[in-house]
Amino acid sequence: MTNKKDLFAGIIIIGNEILSGRTKDLNTSTISKWLNSIGVKVKEARVIPDDEKIIIETINELRKKFDYIFTSGGIGPTHDDITSESVSKSFGLKYEIQKEAFKILEKYYSPGEFNEGRQRMSWMPSNAKLIFNPASGAPGFYVENVFCLPGVPSILESMLPGLTNNLVGGEPILSHTISLRTLESEIAKSLKNVQEKNKNVEIGSYPFFRQGKVGVSLVIRSKDKSQIDTCSEQILNFVKEKSIEIVERD
Amino acid sequence: MTNKKDLFAGIIIIGNEILSGRTKDLNTSTISKWLNSIGVKVKEARVIPDDEKIIIETINELRKKFDYIFTSGGIGPTHDDITSESVSKSFGLKYEIQKEAFKILEKYYSPGEFNEGRQRMSWMPSNAKLIFNPASGAPGFYVENVFCLPGVPSILESMLPGLTNNLVGGEPILSHTISLRTLESEIAKSLKNVQEKNKNVEIGSYPFFRQGKVGVSLVIRSKDKSQIDTCSEQILNFVKEKSIEIVERD
Repeated sequence: MTNKKDLFAGIIIIGNEILSGRTKDLNTSTISKWLNSIGVKVKEARVIPDDEKIIIETINELRKKFDYIFTSGGIGPTHDDITSESVSKSFGLKYEIQKEAFKILEKYYSPGEFNEGRQRMSWMPSNAKLIFNPASGAPGFYVENVFCLPGVPSILESMLPGLTNNLVGGEPILSHTISLRTLESEIAKSLKNVQEKNKNVEIGSYPFFRQGKVGVSLVIRSKDKSQIDTCSEQILNFVKEKSIEIVERD
Repeated sequence: MTNKKDLFAGIIIIGNEILSGRTKDLNTSTISKWLNSIGVKVKEARVIPDDEKIIIETINELRKKFDYIFTSGGIGPTHDDITSESVSKSFGLKYEIQKEAFKILEKYYSPGEFNEGRQRMSWMPSNAKLIFNPASGAPGFYVENVFCLPGVPSILESMLPGLTNNLVGGEPILSHTISLRTLESEIAKSLKNVQEKNKNVEIGSYPFFRQGKVGVSLVIRSKDKSQIDTCSEQILNFVKEKSIEIVERD
């Protein structure tokens, strides 16, 4: 293990459609997996409504608390897209046309089609830096440690790889999953013992139902592969003792 | 419209598996839809780690802010299930065996199988009231306005209908969706006009990709059906003017 500083992030999902239950949030999972792969750990995710006051307060609370903040949603062309303006207000920055974004959008649309709604997507906090959008033209942006991405899952996902070099990452967080044909309550005591012997490893226990059968996935997470291996071995010991079937390991 | 008080809820999803990106959160959507149907609006959802201090702080912050709080996750039998104990500490209540829960679980398991791990699921804050679990025995519980449910989506879902009578609901929030074969940027201006004329209605605009084609779903939400109708009519007017195809309405 090196002594790299631990890096933490918060995610803010902006959108009434998630809070009404109409749409399931897929972006927290996508952003978290990508952040894990570059050594940043997500400590909190919040879903908040399209409400300027709440967006401003949440950004200002979380950007001081974590190394990075990622927002999703509210940067499109319609009246309910108020993220860019709210971020400007959070930082006390002007809300204005970002010239580079304007040029990208102007080029993206056919002549005559770059209307008012579309131009709105080039308005950003002053000095915002762009996040390239390979899927649909309209760029995201970031100001200091606050990264603003769109809400459409496939577009958001397309933009993350290009961002990797803009972040100072930590050590990747590794994981190993052991899925067992058992019940949580059958292994709770043995698992607790293993966790107590391996304080620097995080062991999660997640029941599942698959093809009509129940089981439990144990997820072992750490930055240190050798600690994961030691922990897995101890788990496999009690699994063997109890004659529990291993469904899969990955 | 009657003068029933507006009722608001917050959701707390407890679980490292959501923050690591391994598991997608389905419970926010399930709880929100059910709350909408009984007239309670979700104002915020937070995903937090299995960390006692953070759970206690989050519960204490949100239970004062909203009429109801729903937690999901962390009430199973394993070492990482610390919700019940954390809720006890949030309220300054003893953490002890809930006798009714103990009896339910004792009856649920075959003789000799009600082991230490399983007994752990009967430990709750003192005076906790039970939430019946038709799917897998182990009950949830509530203390004042904090309702604690399990993390497994199918089990959580099975427990909500039984809870309806324990909540004082408001007026159900109605919605109407108009899905159009267009782009957000084509209708942004017209839609903004409609929103401005209908301040008591919430209009959301959500781009979609379906069977290789793009479109936009407009979701109109209000407690008042006649206001939804007025608003829909105005939307359908500009849709007709612009010769936009209606994909579906529901």
